[in-house]
Amino acid sequence: MGEPIEGVYLSAAFDLEEMFARYFEPHRDRVRLRRPEAIDDPLKVHFALAWRPAANAFAPYPALRLACSIAAGVDSIVNCPSLPKDAVVARVRDENQADFMAGFAAWHVVWHHRNMRHHIVHQTRQEWARQGIDSFVPPRDCTVGVLGFGLMGRAIARAVTGMGFKVAAAVRNAPAAPMAGVEYEAGTDATARVAARSDLLINVLPLTAETRGLLDARFFAAMPRGSVLIQLGRGEHLVERDLLAALDAGHLRGASLDVFEREPLPPEHPFWRHERILVTPHQASEPSSVLMAAQVAQAAQDVVAGRVPETMVDRANGY
Amino acid sequence: MGEPIEGVYLSAAFDLEEMFARYFEPHRDRVRLRRPEAIDDPLKVHFALAWRPAANAFAPYPALRLACSIAAGVDSIVNCPSLPKDAVVARVRDENQADFMAGFAAWHVVWHHRNMRHHIVHQTRQEWARQGIDSFVPPRDCTVGVLGFGLMGRAIARAVTGMGFKVAAAVRNAPAAPMAGVEYEAGTDATARVAARSDLLINVLPLTAETRGLLDARFFAAMPRGSVLIQLGRGEHLVERDLLAALDAGHLRGASLDVFEREPLPPEHPFWRHERILVTPHQASEPSSVLMAAQVAQAAQDVVAGRVPETMVDRANGY
Repeated sequence: MGEPIEGVYLSAAFDLEEMFARYFEPHRDRVRLRRPEAIDDPLKVHFALAWRPAANAFAPYPALRLACSIAAGVDSIVNCPSLPKDAVVARVRDENQADFMAGFAAWHVVWHHRNMRHHIVHQTRQEWARQGIDSFVPPRDCTVGVLGFGLMGRAIARAVTGMGFKVAAAVRNAPAAPMAGVEYEAGTDATARVAARSDLLINVLPLTAETRGLLDARFFAAMPRGSVLIQLGRGEHLVERDLLAALDAGHLRGASLDVFEREPLPPEHPFWRHERILVTPHQASEPSSVLMAAQVAQAAQDVVAGRVPETMVDRANGY
Repeated sequence: MGEPIEGVYLSAAFDLEEMFARYFEPHRDRVRLRRPEAIDDPLKVHFALAWRPAANAFAPYPALRLACSIAAGVDSIVNCPSLPKDAVVARVRDENQADFMAGFAAWHVVWHHRNMRHHIVHQTRQEWARQGIDSFVPPRDCTVGVLGFGLMGRAIARAVTGMGFKVAAAVRNAPAAPMAGVEYEAGTDATARVAARSDLLINVLPLTAETRGLLDARFFAAMPRGSVLIQLGRGEHLVERDLLAALDAGHLRGASLDVFEREPLPPEHPFWRHERILVTPHQASEPSSVLMAAQVAQAAQDVVAGRVPETMVDRANGY
């Protein structure tokens, strides 16, 4: 085995070395990752581990042939203007991640459907306060919309139909093998049609030029009065002030928000104190760091050896 | 149509008239329900709507031929010493109830699996506090035990496998058509074998002589260290002081409790203030009162006409 393949951490958002260096320790014979300021010869850098890289982040590395995301999303990488045109882009593929996402989404569905906050509040007061079952819509009369129907969206649909809810899914093309309990809306207006019929709407779309800012005032107006948004996609999908307006006007009943324009969400942000918003800190799911490091090391070896990594994404699709 | 069939409310626990009289209004041409003290001729009473009746509650009504539960459980009725030997006992059958139960149980699984209380607490402090995904066991490596595998238990298994967890179910006899993702333990020790392998254990057993007090110190000792109890069955299954001891010794990691020896749970009860117990007020699921009243009225008509009600239970089994 020769020298380890040289890589660079590229992020304007996170200290990737602090977050992940220990996970690359077991792979130190294969790959060597450093911060940009620690790179002595940029011409030797063949890959990057990246998340929200600065616009010119890739410019110093003309020999770079691979850019790996730390997670499933690659939008901040494929949209980076300095990414070399012929670089391979890779994501993490983690089967467990879809399970984690499914349970997290299902939890938020029940949180809103059964008004579980009520019980948290009343326990703190030692108060026995039942909610009559007739005040809840039976699950089979309740539609949960899912926007984004890749690995994550399908896992969510499996969990939510498992609890007896109806699911409506927005897809590009109706699938050859539909899932039981899922109704599909296909074509250009699919997203709007799912939103218009959903009592609870879960967003797990990838971030693309089409989906940026999708969740805005016009979108919320098309959702049924009294419906709920569960936002697990990307912060940039949401126009935050429009959500606050839709909640405060009483048009939306509640929201769960896991992703934000600015992360960490600043302490002064109104979302934290809004009684009908549940904030979680980008917690729905993430790939195992152990698995991520192993897949990045493998992808680097593959690209240098002229092989196509299993974790490569289609740069044109953006996912 | 003749006179309405006369019935009596029998409960030492609840004011059934106050709870349900309005739901019987639409059926007043068929049935007439009153409190014991309002009955002028006990010989004319042909049925009872009952829940935890006093031991001698049925004694004044020798012509009583039907005792209906307000819910799915009938143990307090079939075990009542004054119940006439030949009386038909009926329960409520509500398909929506199983869906409600499934979602509620799934919610508690994720509550403990992902430590969701953490996020509720940190939102109140406007603190962004992530939990690393590698601190959680992936769902597919995590076993959720289900005790009680009737309509409710099967619905729970469907929801929990839908989130990617493994399910272990205790059953009398292994089923001819097993559910995908469910491993069965059959026979006399089935309950103990499920408990011994469950990271999270959900109880929805019916209350019988065999299951009363089942969840005691010996039972908890057989559960894995760090496991969790989700108690959605009947209050009498649980030896409350033994649960507190198992939690305080650090053997059990947490518990969700929805049913109690005494309901409402008294304000001074230690469960309310225990940081690793989530208390809900017998809220998992209940039949629709609208549906219950319709099924009771129909059962009364059936029994008086010599027909077997669809909602009749097997008194010997107790469910």
